[in-house]
Amino acid sequence: MQTQTENADDIRVAVSTVILTVQRTTSSSAPVLSLPLVRRTREPFYDQWALPGGWLNAHENLEDAAARTLRETTGLAPSYLEQLYAFGAVRRSPTRVISVVYWALVQADAVAETTATLHHQHDQENVAWFSAAQLPALAFDHADIIDYALWRLRNKVGYSRVAHGFLPPEFTLADLRETYESILGKHLDPANFRRQVEASGSLIPTDKFRTGAHRPARLYRHNSTVELADKGPLTPEETKTP
Amino acid sequence: MQTQTENADDIRVAVSTVILTVQRTTSSSAPVLSLPLVRRTREPFYDQWALPGGWLNAHENLEDAAARTLRETTGLAPSYLEQLYAFGAVRRSPTRVISVVYWALVQADAVAETTATLHHQHDQENVAWFSAAQLPALAFDHADIIDYALWRLRNKVGYSRVAHGFLPPEFTLADLRETYESILGKHLDPANFRRQVEASGSLIPTDKFRTGAHRPARLYRHNSTVELADKGPLTPEETKTP
Repeated sequence: MQTQTENADDIRVAVSTVILTVQRTTSSSAPVLSLPLVRRTREPFYDQWALPGGWLNAHENLEDAAARTLRETTGLAPSYLEQLYAFGAVRRSPTRVISVVYWALVQADAVAETTATLHHQHDQENVAWFSAAQLPALAFDHADIIDYALWRLRNKVGYSRVAHGFLPPEFTLADLRETYESILGKHLDPANFRRQVEASGSLIPTDKFRTGAHRPARLYRHNSTVELADKGPLTPEETKTP
Repeated sequence: MQTQTENADDIRVAVSTVILTVQRTTSSSAPVLSLPLVRRTREPFYDQWALPGGWLNAHENLEDAAARTLRETTGLAPSYLEQLYAFGAVRRSPTRVISVVYWALVQADAVAETTATLHHQHDQENVAWFSAAQLPALAFDHADIIDYALWRLRNKVGYSRVAHGFLPPEFTLADLRETYESILGKHLDPANFRRQVEASGSLIPTDKFRTGAHRPARLYRHNSTVELADKGPLTPEETKTP
């Protein structure tokens, strides 16, 4: 019998969060799938960009650590927070670190509202948002982790209502289509998209319309009788975020 | 800034594996979804049943630890091994333990072949197989973990070829239907099942038939052009099992 306990003491646990949103850089441009990164202020990988996160506290649940990271980085509560994967390859870090990675979807409107406030806080000076298609060099195996998160998002968007995590409570069909387009990285035919979405029963039309430069567009909301997210096997204790 | 590093040193990492098979207790009975448990020989939860597993070694990849557990418990290589979830609730164990849980599907024929050998090995004296529907009292949160694994299996069986992980290379449509029935816990109409499976293109008929008490039944094999398992974001290093 090997002394596994001693070995296990050399392993530390971190929690990181891939925070995704779909935002427009200007009001007329197409929305872009984006995520915040944090510039590292210590070794290893000093001065490189990394996923928001840190060491798990001994008295903190995994999901609470992920929600804390999200709050500290963006000032937001998640509209969708799910465990992505535990990354544990031996050589992913100079010391042995198991990173339990969560992914969160947040709404662009909420991001815009908190950005001004956060810029005045010291902690936020090293945070910047990047397009998922144009990421900088990343610390550790964080480029692989983001690739996996994007792959899961693209798969999930096909058979679940995950795209709604990016949208406000009321939105137009064009908003929803452009969100799908930004995730899938391809153009979708507006008429086909409308037919498929209407047939799915996942949307409830409201009596309101958005007016502006184009003809008025009806606002829709989610059919909340359908479950939005797979929350995983969380106990009531674990789902509670402070 | 809190001293997170100190706290993180109080957390240890374990790897456990939910090993599932579909086996008949007698040659004429319906197959039953089953899993092996290990009787604990130390505190906490002394003498109670638990999932096979143990501490992660500092120089061992997560997936290698799961494959090692499977090999030590059953003598088998997995036909399907996938990370299930990282369980980390603060009070799931007297000390703080993050358990990265894998699930493995193995074929009943292989289990039967190795059982006789294993009974002579000291390590296997505390291993027993249980029906997933009739589990004993379990240590830690292992009952919740098994519930989650079974929920995932039932969900997955609907949209992927995961059920094939339980079957030998060639099998009859009745074998496949009874495997689904044991997972889903309900009867499936044989004629409807045949139509759906044949329409899916997931099976390739062979020229062979199984003969016996009933009329000859054609043997099928998987259409291996379809990916069996989501292996997760594993690096080549991590997928290599010694």
